Amino acid sequence: MSQDLAITFDDILSAAERLKGHAVRTPLLEFTPLNEKLGKRVLVKFEGAQHTGSFKFRGAFNRISTIEPSAKSAGVVAWSSGNHAQGIAAAARMNHIPATIVMPSDAPKIKVNNTRALGADIVFYDRYSESREEIAMALVKERGAILVPSYDDPHIIAGQGTVGLEIVQQAEEAKADIGAVIAPCGGGGLISGIATAIKHECPDASVYSAEPVGFDSTGRSLKSDGPAKNDSDARSICDALQSPYPGQMTLPINKLKLAGGLAVSDDEVRAAVRFAFEKLKLVAEPGGAAGLAAALAGKIPAHEGALAIVISGANVDPDLYCQILAS
Amino acid sequence: MSQDLAITFDDILSAAERLKGHAVRTPLLEFTPLNEKLGKRVLVKFEGAQHTGSFKFRGAFNRISTIEPSAKSAGVVAWSSGNHAQGIAAAARMNHIPATIVMPSDAPKIKVNNTRALGADIVFYDRYSESREEIAMALVKERGAILVPSYDDPHIIAGQGTVGLEIVQQAEEAKADIGAVIAPCGGGGLISGIATAIKHECPDASVYSAEPVGFDSTGRSLKSDGPAKNDSDARSICDALQSPYPGQMTLPINKLKLAGGLAVSDDEVRAAVRFAFEKLKLVAEPGGAAGLAAALAGKIPAHEGALAIVISGANVDPDLYCQILAS
Repeated sequence: MSQDLAITFDDILSAAERLKGHAVRTPLLEFTPLNEKLGKRVLVKFEGAQHTGSFKFRGAFNRISTIEPSAKSAGVVAWSSGNHAQGIAAAARMNHIPATIVMPSDAPKIKVNNTRALGADIVFYDRYSESREEIAMALVKERGAILVPSYDDPHIIAGQGTVGLEIVQQAEEAKADIGAVIAPCGGGGLISGIATAIKHECPDASVYSAEPVGFDSTGRSLKSDGPAKNDSDARSICDALQSPYPGQMTLPINKLKLAGGLAVSDDEVRAAVRFAFEKLKLVAEPGGAAGLAAALAGKIPAHEGALAIVISGANVDPDLYCQILAS
Repeated sequence: MSQDLAITFDDILSAAERLKGHAVRTPLLEFTPLNEKLGKRVLVKFEGAQHTGSFKFRGAFNRISTIEPSAKSAGVVAWSSGNHAQGIAAAARMNHIPATIVMPSDAPKIKVNNTRALGADIVFYDRYSESREEIAMALVKERGAILVPSYDDPHIIAGQGTVGLEIVQQAEEAKADIGAVIAPCGGGGLISGIATAIKHECPDASVYSAEPVGFDSTGRSLKSDGPAKNDSDARSICDALQSPYPGQMTLPINKLKLAGGLAVSDDEVRAAVRFAFEKLKLVAEPGGAAGLAAALAGKIPAHEGALAIVISGANVDPDLYCQILAS
């Protein structure tokens, strides 16, 4: 079966080799208040400590570091609400490649500013009326640049899968048996990479995606034949998890490997961001806290063994963060 | 010389044995924006991830776990602005010992609430007109309880010293040569423990204390013959670093082992709390960020090798935190 999938476990091992010495091996942390709250061992993989404040650097570096020298000068193009943007910008800078990012005009300021500070050019579009794909493809044609998708790319998925590989290794170091893993899901690159690693190394563990209500296209697709699409009227506090539909490469992996897809409300996400501040002392952006939100809301089915929760990003504007802390 | 000091390096090794499996081995993290800002490798020891959100659990557990079974029922008494309080409460609970804490009436709510939630009794006093020592000693006499000082105790100093021991081990894992270490300083328990570990293992490294302006009694004592005292009119945003004077046990260690004491303003501390939020994605309380503040303000003398910065605590009320983020 797996030969039909975009990546194998070996691709994740190769990505880990490429990322060695370039990406941060982010900590897997354990907190008494969280263990007590959920009544079990819980391990938190904190990707806020990754370069650019989210896991996206992993896939971006894994893809960009394979670009041939002759193709470097034409640069790369990507679209992103902000975390992929920063990951691409940082990885491109490290590899001396120019980067142009198509970003929604309502992207968080911190993400726009950081992307620019990392040396990338930014082209804005309207999230609700314009097509990021069309704008990016026009740039690609015009410049002969390479498009780096945010999830539908084997190198991207394998790079994000190194999060899962590290969870396996670090859980072993912490003498924990992983029984379940949950991570936020937009287009599905992170969760499909993680699931590939986890199901290879811990086949009995259950892997769940966490999506915002209204953007739970992966969760709904798992229960139906074809891919589900998100309603264009949907809104969420999770700016990082607003893909219109699951990826063509990620969904087949997720269909095969996920135990389920969980949807979380904005209020549940706010509660998780507050919990991370008060009890974990970690900054989490709304989308990054979606998995924690599902866990705190008691949505993860009962399971043996420890639960690993990925906090996938921490790029949040202080205004919104403080609104959430006060809510 | 060292036989006159309250602790030796071996006491820290013993503390590390006692803490094994009870305290968190907090992560030592590296961040590109911080390396770039300071123009060198910088490693951040994040004690916000310790039980109760600060390093204080280490010393408290090291002291309380040595209490004889026959003395347990009379309990322990401590005074604290909040972090030692929580450390004592958590360590006492783990050892099934009742705890009473004398806390200033203006202690941050998060610290009061967490201390209470950990099962300790709280007795409030006025920080500027009453003596915490007298109140605590009356409780000790009345109950036959054991007083657990917040810094002037060999077990407390040795317990906090495990932070330094871990920095040495984790820097080696990260292939970093430690050239300088800075940590916040109130009564001096943390910095004297750290300095004992660092100077034993990396004798060429320089260790600095960071104190708020007006509460820089350790820094001033290093430059004078006797111990300096802080002005009772002094005020600081760093609620955790407001000891009236250096410890009797900690100052002789610090005099011998510190390369200097640095003082930071409230504005420099605010800038460090914001930097930790924006770039490190870590919650830091004002006092916990004093070392980072000194580093960001360019106050650490030039040195070879990597700089290790201890963020010592992260218990901050959301109101104050958001005031700081907006400032």
